Formats: sequence, structure tokens, C-alpha cells
Amino acid sequence: MTSTARGDDAPPFTLSQEAQILKRSMMRELIAVTARPGIISFAGGLPAPECLPVRAWGDCMAETLAEDGPLALQYGPPYPPLQTAIARLMAGRGVTVDPEQVFITSGCQQGLHIAGRLLMDAGSVAVIDEAVFPGVRQAFGGPAHLLRTVSSDVDRGLDLAELEAALRQEPRPRALVVVPDFHNPLGRSLDDADRDQVVALAREAGVALVEDDPYSLLRFEGQAPLPLLQRAPERTIYLGSFSKLVAPALRAGWLIAPPGLTDKLRVIKESVDLETSAFIQRGLARFLDGGYLDDHLALVRRTYQARCALMQEALTAHFPAGSRWTRPEGGMFIWAELPEGVDTLALLPAMVDQGVAYIPGAAFTPGGAARAMRLNFSNAAPDRIVEGIALLGEALGRVLGG
Amino acid sequence: MTSTARGDDAPPFTLSQEAQILKRSMMRELIAVTARPGIISFAGGLPAPECLPVRAWGDCMAETLAEDGPLALQYGPPYPPLQTAIARLMAGRGVTVDPEQVFITSGCQQGLHIAGRLLMDAGSVAVIDEAVFPGVRQAFGGPAHLLRTVSSDVDRGLDLAELEAALRQEPRPRALVVVPDFHNPLGRSLDDADRDQVVALAREAGVALVEDDPYSLLRFEGQAPLPLLQRAPERTIYLGSFSKLVAPALRAGWLIAPPGLTDKLRVIKESVDLETSAFIQRGLARFLDGGYLDDHLALVRRTYQARCALMQEALTAHFPAGSRWTRPEGGMFIWAELPEGVDTLALLPAMVDQGVAYIPGAAFTPGGAARAMRLNFSNAAPDRIVEGIALLGEALGRVLGG
Repeated sequence: MTSTARGDDAPPFTLSQEAQILKRSMMRELIAVTARPGIISFAGGLPAPECLPVRAWGDCMAETLAEDGPLALQYGPPYPPLQTAIARLMAGRGVTVDPEQVFITSGCQQGLHIAGRLLMDAGSVAVIDEAVFPGVRQAFGGPAHLLRTVSSDVDRGLDLAELEAALRQEPRPRALVVVPDFHNPLGRSLDDADRDQVVALAREAGVALVEDDPYSLLRFEGQAPLPLLQRAPERTIYLGSFSKLVAPALRAGWLIAPPGLTDKLRVIKESVDLETSAFIQRGLARFLDGGYLDDHLALVRRTYQARCALMQEALTAHFPAGSRWTRPEGGMFIWAELPEGVDTLALLPAMVDQGVAYIPGAAFTPGGAARAMRLNFSNAAPDRIVEGIALLGEALGRVLGG
Repeated sequence: MTSTARGDDAPPFTLSQEAQILKRSMMRELIAVTARPGIISFAGGLPAPECLPVRAWGDCMAETLAEDGPLALQYGPPYPPLQTAIARLMAGRGVTVDPEQVFITSGCQQGLHIAGRLLMDAGSVAVIDEAVFPGVRQAFGGPAHLLRTVSSDVDRGLDLAELEAALRQEPRPRALVVVPDFHNPLGRSLDDADRDQVVALAREAGVALVEDDPYSLLRFEGQAPLPLLQRAPERTIYLGSFSKLVAPALRAGWLIAPPGLTDKLRVIKESVDLETSAFIQRGLARFLDGGYLDDHLALVRRTYQARCALMQEALTAHFPAGSRWTRPEGGMFIWAELPEGVDTLALLPAMVDQGVAYIPGAAFTPGGAARAMRLNFSNAAPDRIVEGIALLGEALGRVLGG
């Protein structure tokens, strides 16, 4: 039953059940808390500011307005040259897709929302990672949905036996949400054998696979395994994003679903924002077709590889014995697990006072991952990475020594 | 109970109940059908291409990138200078609002979605116009919600007795959605007395008022009555948009709700698209603060006033006796009702063949408004307006004469 919200600030009308229980996400709170001037932040998932393509994007915008004129500012359908450019990008990842199958979104979060609406009813179940980007819970774990989680180990990765059990348990789940490349927050990727196993289990369970992939093109070493989309195109809803590839402020991404769903996807998207900016779509088509993306990605990969290596070295030098962390081959995040006796959520305020910030594991695993932290390596400058990890390491040493 | 979708193209997983029944909206179908090269289109709700501020927006973009650099392309919170500029815009409409209360959205449709999520549960009721922009039904009339409609007359406007009955009927509604200025599709506005009455009825019923206002600043004659927001700030969720004020491709708008709801609004917005582009927000702040908006709106109002007057004259000259239509003082649309014997949906294919398009009433009132059509006067050039209305008038004459 619904009830009228009452209280000092309560409005004189009834809120939905969803709205009554909504609170700011812990991660957003933490990112706000850690946004102090001068702080060394490993908290957000922000691209390196030095890499953001200010000049190249400016050129693409100016060219778009000069060549397309009013069409660039009008309402507009999905822009075919952008769909074609994205299909080419996917071909580079080994995926065969018809440009018409490329559905333009306003980013991965919108992709998650659309996939959630496409698949989930009140009371239906989704299987997700135990440690997961909060937006996945928002899209697949509304008050009415049920989430079943699968754990990962820093060294061994996704627990496939747990996954099998979660998929076989009644009631049968509708969806399995996976981030196969440079997982947020874990930084790990699934190898070929894991991917084959995930696909086989999903097929057996008859679930949809939601492949959330904002990071795979940020690989700076190792071989890229084929996406789930190419392994199981009949059941994969693939989500890509330009936020990390080009710039977060573009608010553009793409979704690829099995054939026959485009009209439904379109109506769901129309209900949340009508369409994605024609101006941004046309600018992005030029960014991809004009070779700007290749140059930009080369710079981003080189920069992130150096920063990641520096952070790995600093972790080895400064973190207490018994700490474990992931060794990503791309993306933006390292996940570190500290020895017994550390509570990363409790420690954060003192660390922010000392000028360094991270996201505690509890923000990704409500009520769990108390000894873990997510460390972003893309945003801070090299000298700040070394300084920040040293500060963190000293504080952790004191906590464990005391 | 859910069932697994089956058919030629059916995916091998289960869709949500919402997705199973989703179809493309009739309006989108019709806009696609009518998008033939060379057609005189009164169908879409598109700004005049000649007015779109290509040069001014280009200047604001270039300035944003030059002055703000990487910050313009990064993730970013609501941009305070834009919130302040919008509060000033609202002050010009007689509304007092603290800039912090201005919640940035990705346009009015996203505002409708957020308001729907804030207010509606499965089974709760909203009161809406009988003839209404389909996006309102998408946001407030999901499969689980119940819609109660109130009719309007071309000459007399909103039926307040019907509204009173709809608000008093059990189960009591949660929300009343109103477009007080230059209603889409009707083109009519509520006068001061009607607004007072709507507010009094909403207060009595304890419902939230959703004031959908993409058009009020497009007034080209007459006095602007105060928005519902200023009359009932305790219960009004006001939705504004830059799509018609500046350009649809910006995908930006704003929402103003009673105090105390900001955190809930933010979490709902985060779940659908994380945030609205920092780049666009910063460009818009410059567009508003730099005086570009004033110049642009002066041009738009002058242009739309001339096109509306031309269409009114052409309707008088060419439409059959017994036709009635609205006489808007702003906005983009005229709503015309033809004499008995006309079916505007059935007539459309023949008209498209003859090179002129409109949206039949049935797209706004499912199963109803068979004799009505929405005519957009903002998009077509003056000579085309006269030519198109003459073509339509002749065809309608033939239908009624035969």
C-alpha cells in the first residue's frame, strides 16, 4: 500500500513507492565528499583531463555546423553515418553487425535502463556481479526486481560455479548482466574460456545477456577476447559508450540487440528522452570518420598504461603486506583488497583530510567488501599517483600496526 | 503472468510485459510516412530551419571550449551559471525560484519520465487531456497506470466540470498533467480564471500538478498569464525545455519541483542517463547570458507570428464551411476540426501523395478525434503554407462534396 509522505519538507501529494525509498547513491555522496580542491582523487571514473580532445572536438563541431547547418540543430533520427562508423568500430573488435542494428543511446546508463525496461517485470530476477557499478542496480534492481549476485576473486576472477547456481535457481532469472572487459570496479577481464562458459550457461538458462562494455577499446596490453555479442548474438544486448572513448560530456553511446527489437527499443528510448542529439551524432560521425578517434585512443592508451604501471609500482612499494589487487590490461580501475582489520569506508574521512580519496568497496557491494577499495588510475597526474598511493599506504600501515 | 515471446523474429529470452505490448507510436509512424522529399509538412513539431541559431550556437560552443577547456568535456554536475540563467528566465515569466531549485534535464520528455517515476505506482491514476502529446501517455500511462482524460473544446477550452469530476472520482488520482500555454496539439492556452480554477481543484484533490511548458516563451501576442508553478509552488512540478527556445538537438531542459525532492529527482535522472551534457550546459549558459537568447526569441516570435497569421488566412480562404480551428497566440500548432464526414486518418495517405502532410487527431486521442488534425505552422516556408492549406482545403471539399 502507498502512503502519503509526511514530514517537515514533505510535499502535499503522494510519492511513488520507488520515490519514497530513494536515497542518494553512496557512490555519488562519496564522489561529492571527495571533490575538494587540491585533493588527489582516485575516486571518480574520470578520463585524464590532459587527454580530452578539446581541439579535435572543436574542429568536428565547427565542421558540423558549417556543413550541415540547421540540420545539425534540428530534431533528427539516428544518423546513418554514425551507425556505419560504429559498425566499423565493432568490426575492429571482431563483431559483425549491420549498421541498421546499431541503436544510438545517450550513453551506457541509458542502455542499462532500456535493457532493464525491455527485460524486467515487477518480481523478475536478474543476475549481476556482487561488486558492481551502482547504475546496474538502479536499472535491474528497482524496488520490484530481485537481484542475485555472483562473486569474483581478485586473482581467480568470476566464480563460475556460483554463476551456474544463480542461473539454475528458481525463479529463473531473466537477465545476466556482465562487464567482460576491465570490469568496474574490479578492473579484471574475462578470458576466452570464461566467456565461452558464460555464454553456455546463459544459453542453458534461456536468459538475456546484457554486455556492458564502456571500456574494451581502452585496452593497452594483451589480446582482446571476442565480445559476448559475437559469441551469442541471439541473446546479447550489447552496450557501448563514447564517454570513455571520446568524452563524458557527449552523452552518447550505442546498443546492439538481437534483430526484431528495434521498434520496442525506440519506444522505450522515446519515453525517456525522445532521441539523442543530432548535433552530437553528426559531430561524432566526423570524429570517427576523420581519424580523430584513432589518434585520440592511441594517446589515451599510452597515457593510461603509464599511469596504471606507476600505480602498480606504488602499490607494491607502499601497500601493507597481505594486500592484493587486480592487474588490469586496460580500462580505468584497480581493485585492492587489504588485510583483515581495515574498514575502507570508516577510513575514508581521515584520508580525505589528508588529501587523498578512493571509493570504498561498500559502495559497490552494499554491506560487503569492507576491506576493498576502487582506485582510479586514469585521472590523476603521474606525480600525484605516486604521492597519493604513498599517503594511503602509510595510513593503512598505521591502521594495521595499531 | 509473463510469457516467452515467440514468433519468427522472437528472441530466445523473455521480454517484460511492457516490452511485449509496445508498438511504435502512431505519431512517430506518421512523421516517418510524411518525411518525403519535397513534401509540405505541417506534421512534425519542428522549429523553422531558417531561425535555428547556427552561427550563435557555434560561437557559444567555440567560446566554451576555448575558455573552459577539458572541463567542458568532462563529467560535471548541474552547472550553476545555467541554473542562475534559467531562474532569471523564469523571473521573466513572473516565477520566483532559487537557482538551486532548478534541476537540469535532457528535455521535457525526460522531465515527464522523471515526474511519472516520482509520482506513479502500478495501478495509480493520472488525469490528462483527452487530446495529448503521446509522450505524456508514455510517461504517465505505462501498462500499469490508469489514465483519466478531460476534453477541451476548440472555442471554449478545457472542460472544468469534467476536470472536477475526474479529480473527485475514486480511486483518487496522483497527478494532473497540464499544458497551460499553447497546448500540443490544441494550440490553446488557459486564461487566468481557468488557471485559478485548475489550482483550486488540484489543491482540493491533493494531487501533484505537472505543468508541461515547452512553449510559453514562444508567445507572439496577448498577455502571458502566470504559470501554475507560481500559483501553486507547493504542488507543481514544472517542466521547461530548450528544444523550442533554442534548438531541439541540444537535448536540454529543466524541472522545478517543490523543495525537498532534489535528491530523489537526481537518483531517478541518474538511473536513465547519469547527467545532462556539461558541454551543452556550459554552452547554453553563454547563450542565455550573452544575450543570444533574447535576439533569437525575437526572431522566432516574429517569424512564427507571420506564419501563424498566414495559415489562419489560408484556413479561412480554403477550409470547408463548418470547419473550426484554434487561434493560438504563440507556440507552433493549430488544431482544426472538420465537419461530419471527414476522417483525417483515412485521408492522410492521399494527401501525402498530393504532397502535403499533417497529423490526424487520432494520433493524440486514440480511437477519437477522427475529424481533427494538428497543423504545425512554424516549420514550412510562407509560400508553402499557403499552397499546402489550399491543397488540403480542396481535398476536404471533395470529400465532403462527394
